[in-house]
Amino acid sequence: MAGFFVSFEGIDKCGKSTQAALLTNHLKAIGYDVLLTREPGATVLGRELRHLLLTWNSPESVSPKAEMLMFAADRAQHVASLIRPALQAGKCVITDRFIDSTFAYQGYGRGLDTGQLKTIQNIATDGLVPHMTVWVDIEVKTSRSRMGLSENDRIESESDEMFEKVRSGYAELHSAYPERIIRVDGEKTIQDVFQDILKAVMPRIS
Amino acid sequence: MAGFFVSFEGIDKCGKSTQAALLTNHLKAIGYDVLLTREPGATVLGRELRHLLLTWNSPESVSPKAEMLMFAADRAQHVASLIRPALQAGKCVITDRFIDSTFAYQGYGRGLDTGQLKTIQNIATDGLVPHMTVWVDIEVKTSRSRMGLSENDRIESESDEMFEKVRSGYAELHSAYPERIIRVDGEKTIQDVFQDILKAVMPRIS
Repeated sequence: MAGFFVSFEGIDKCGKSTQAALLTNHLKAIGYDVLLTREPGATVLGRELRHLLLTWNSPESVSPKAEMLMFAADRAQHVASLIRPALQAGKCVITDRFIDSTFAYQGYGRGLDTGQLKTIQNIATDGLVPHMTVWVDIEVKTSRSRMGLSENDRIESESDEMFEKVRSGYAELHSAYPERIIRVDGEKTIQDVFQDILKAVMPRIS
Repeated sequence: MAGFFVSFEGIDKCGKSTQAALLTNHLKAIGYDVLLTREPGATVLGRELRHLLLTWNSPESVSPKAEMLMFAADRAQHVASLIRPALQAGKCVITDRFIDSTFAYQGYGRGLDTGQLKTIQNIATDGLVPHMTVWVDIEVKTSRSRMGLSENDRIESESDEMFEKVRSGYAELHSAYPERIIRVDGEKTIQDVFQDILKAVMPRIS
């Protein structure tokens, strides 16, 4: 498969959506054919699942496994109908969240078994792993101060303790896959973070 | 875990819902505490997933893996919030469809890998398998003639070829798990089918 596949990861409000958009614009400006996408909710089916996952307000709580399997369904649809066709057409695909979000949130955050998560991700994606993953790392207190500015969804409303676990999860993933995952310091200004990302991404994409 | 767990299986319109209801009424009449339930759609979350799965009408087709993972999410929620608590309370749980539907429809019918399906079922259910499964077997042409009487959902609208594969799938499951899965002839009258089911179920439940 041709193409180049980059995922952006990090705790909520780390700035990854902004950085993914900046990278997309930069690559387009220098002539790349780029698909910017996100999880959950990039497909028609995914938008329905995203709505269920993020705005759930029934007294019936969503079980951690059901949640994880719904994210996996969103991902399977995303890979089959958008990501894989774009890569096969030689495009650069940039996604805001992918497999590492599952390991960080559902694994480290909610305590689901990492081995089971790996198995499910592998099935959902048919083994597709990004060429490169940009982890935009911020402290939980920074995330919280940025959240104050907007309405929060179901997952953004989780406890600080949960977000600390998720952030530690990203750190462990970064240690486990140092070739694939690069860490950038999301506490810097948007332009400084973007320069750090360019320095890491451009040598690999060329 | 106490309790007794029976699943009903078969191709669409085989009469399993009718038989599950008859068995429920019979067991209640002789003093059992029974939960009658079904998949997909027994929980609040499940009803949302059921709606997506069965009434999908977007030009974007649902990928087989996304479909399978959504059924698995429905099942995970069903087990966690209804089935396991009822069994732990010592109840008899009767469900209209469970894991074998996934093997028959998504495995044999759609061609997904059986090993992967087993892994996912095991994760979704935490290893819960029915004590007994009643397969109500009818011919595809019988299913078709009964379908003529009502509006059909997305899965009921599949081809005869698909339904033949699903029926063969049930036959293979029956051979593979002869202790757990019993076959009853769904071409008989409702009362005759019910008598066959009682003969098989009552010695085991007592």
